[in-house]
Amino acid sequence: MQSLKKTPRLCLSPFRLGRYINRSVFLATQILPSVDNQHRKDFGPTVSPERLLLGPGPSNADPAVLKALSQPPIGHLDPFYVDLMSEVQELLRYAWQTSNRLTLPMSGTGSAAMEATLANVVEPEDTVLVAIKGYFGHRLADMAGRYKANVETIHKEWGNAFSLQEIEDALKKHTPAVLAIVHAETSTGVCQPMDGIGDLCRKYNCLLLVDTVTSLGGVPLYLDEWKIDLAYSCSQKGLSCPPGLGPFSMNERAENKMSNRKDKVPNWYLDVSLLNKYWGSDRVYHHTAPVNMNFGIREALRLLAEEGLEVSWGRHRTNAKSLWNSLENIGLELHVKEELRLPTLTTVKIPEGLDGKAFTKHLLNNFGVEIGGGLGDLAGKVWRIGLMGYNSTSENVDKIINIFETELPKFR
Amino acid sequence: MQSLKKTPRLCLSPFRLGRYINRSVFLATQILPSVDNQHRKDFGPTVSPERLLLGPGPSNADPAVLKALSQPPIGHLDPFYVDLMSEVQELLRYAWQTSNRLTLPMSGTGSAAMEATLANVVEPEDTVLVAIKGYFGHRLADMAGRYKANVETIHKEWGNAFSLQEIEDALKKHTPAVLAIVHAETSTGVCQPMDGIGDLCRKYNCLLLVDTVTSLGGVPLYLDEWKIDLAYSCSQKGLSCPPGLGPFSMNERAENKMSNRKDKVPNWYLDVSLLNKYWGSDRVYHHTAPVNMNFGIREALRLLAEEGLEVSWGRHRTNAKSLWNSLENIGLELHVKEELRLPTLTTVKIPEGLDGKAFTKHLLNNFGVEIGGGLGDLAGKVWRIGLMGYNSTSENVDKIINIFETELPKFR
Repeated sequence: MQSLKKTPRLCLSPFRLGRYINRSVFLATQILPSVDNQHRKDFGPTVSPERLLLGPGPSNADPAVLKALSQPPIGHLDPFYVDLMSEVQELLRYAWQTSNRLTLPMSGTGSAAMEATLANVVEPEDTVLVAIKGYFGHRLADMAGRYKANVETIHKEWGNAFSLQEIEDALKKHTPAVLAIVHAETSTGVCQPMDGIGDLCRKYNCLLLVDTVTSLGGVPLYLDEWKIDLAYSCSQKGLSCPPGLGPFSMNERAENKMSNRKDKVPNWYLDVSLLNKYWGSDRVYHHTAPVNMNFGIREALRLLAEEGLEVSWGRHRTNAKSLWNSLENIGLELHVKEELRLPTLTTVKIPEGLDGKAFTKHLLNNFGVEIGGGLGDLAGKVWRIGLMGYNSTSENVDKIINIFETELPKFR
Repeated sequence: MQSLKKTPRLCLSPFRLGRYINRSVFLATQILPSVDNQHRKDFGPTVSPERLLLGPGPSNADPAVLKALSQPPIGHLDPFYVDLMSEVQELLRYAWQTSNRLTLPMSGTGSAAMEATLANVVEPEDTVLVAIKGYFGHRLADMAGRYKANVETIHKEWGNAFSLQEIEDALKKHTPAVLAIVHAETSTGVCQPMDGIGDLCRKYNCLLLVDTVTSLGGVPLYLDEWKIDLAYSCSQKGLSCPPGLGPFSMNERAENKMSNRKDKVPNWYLDVSLLNKYWGSDRVYHHTAPVNMNFGIREALRLLAEEGLEVSWGRHRTNAKSLWNSLENIGLELHVKEELRLPTLTTVKIPEGLDGKAFTKHLLNNFGVEIGGGLGDLAGKVWRIGLMGYNSTSENVDKIINIFETELPKFR
């Protein structure tokens, strides 16, 4: 079907009507403007290519999750759906190791959940201290500024983590209302050691807000034990679900700050005081939930609980170690020192003089394998290889290493 | 699997490991806190019940859409996905009858797209005039207030529409920067006549913002012809896709207002100036797109283009008229006068003395059929019957009428 001129008024469309012909009618009772067909394109059915997603995410979804996702939708206040919501919350609590009542998936991607953590607790003039050691720290700072926070930052080179001393010094200096830090920096492949940060935040009377986008499900993570007050994540990495939901959790300390706000939360869609009435026992309609995505994440979280966190964490670590060894064995250098490396995402230095972008393109086009390039400070300097959730297998390690071994020499 | 006490340190989970056993390992190199299993529940696989969704939405999705939705995800910067984004935009332009460049699905539900229309153009102290004739007008007013607008409202009883004179009087009185009005009020079943409102907004130099949540795909709608500057909708009604995406469109007049803002858009996730760099030719990463939902909406919009707008609108009108006649034939009264009735959503008065809620519950539990109750001013007074997208068929009209005929007498 090409772009065509306007069709005559009230005229039956001349195009393929197929299955609809029997129920088609003229709008005989209304005088309407002509329909403009310039944007009416004749695209074929929606068929996506096969990909093995070994980049920074999305990762491949578990086939059982895709099956759950494709069930016919039901109402967002259907008793079955309301039960499912509670199950999703409970399984999320397990995955995050928290008993926070306010644990739920936001109806948007991980970035929406990130914004929700700030939007709900930050009031104008609050100091928000962001510990930046990669791309997503900058995003937190940008978002906090939009909520009129007084944003302070501390910085670490991209590929390193903060020491407890550095964090304490900054807390002492800035006395923030919120410290925001990324646990698993997807842009650098660094896992920030969390021991002791929660205690410091209690000592300096601030909330601890943690990005767990690339750790949830794949890397040891204990919200309550680590005294994390606010956390967010995504569905498409360690959970083996497609992107589209943003797990969110807040404890009572954070809830108290939210409850004491002078004004309404300046973001209606992400307002947890409203969402609480839908996810809590009241079940008051807020927005029409993305029910199918929630079918998917329930199944994803269920499979994680079935496997068990220790087993999943161990699987991620074993496969990552095998990847690290193999990459070094073929002469590549890793960007992050071993004790700070994320099991879910590995940054590999692009060898001097090699066109990293051409190589990733070659992998995608010829093998259907996606790996990521660098972001921000690391653009053009590293590749990012993800082994997350369903994709963290020894078979995938072998596959990517074999491809590197045979294909990389062609680019040197 | 019941809630159990904490497992010993570094111990392999004692639960069903099944498919994972071969790749499981101990985290032998790390000393970690114990994993708490109190929230580790042994839920069964995710299986949703069969429902015929004849309420205010979600409506049933086309099976072809569910098939598209369940394909394995691909990267949000994959060349295939980038092409798909452009196709979704083009098909959305057709569905909305607009050539607006900034036409795209927000990565959230319809309420997120609603918020996006306000968040991007409203600056503090701007007057936003909301014409309220139902629940969603109130929501617009609440949201506008959160963006520090000076919110003015005009009201009409729930079940009626505004006249051009009433709108002109209010524009003259309040000289707003934005007039927000709902085209298809899902809470009342009223279709607001749009002729002339766009011209008035140009005359009084304000932007026209229109809620098309329950009209897109099912009811005649011409964004450009009607001089609508900002519009939003949802995926789960006239488009026959599950909920989870919020179609959004803004024209150059609205874009100019956004470009002249003094401050950044106070909502990062919905910031169209950032989203434009991802959806426009730059393809700069903003957030990880909900790729599977976009597979779904592409298929939904493709099917709508294949059917053709005139045919779809005619189908909705014919089936709605048949529903209206049949409901009146069995002695029920409709809430809205015929010339203002929405073909996609019909409000039926609950007969005096009848327990409307018990009846809807009976339909859901015994027939798997969902219809809606009243919201806000109409709570307890009406039922809401939707015939939207894939569900607007004569078979569904017959089915719901038959059920009403046999079951309603049991509740009188």
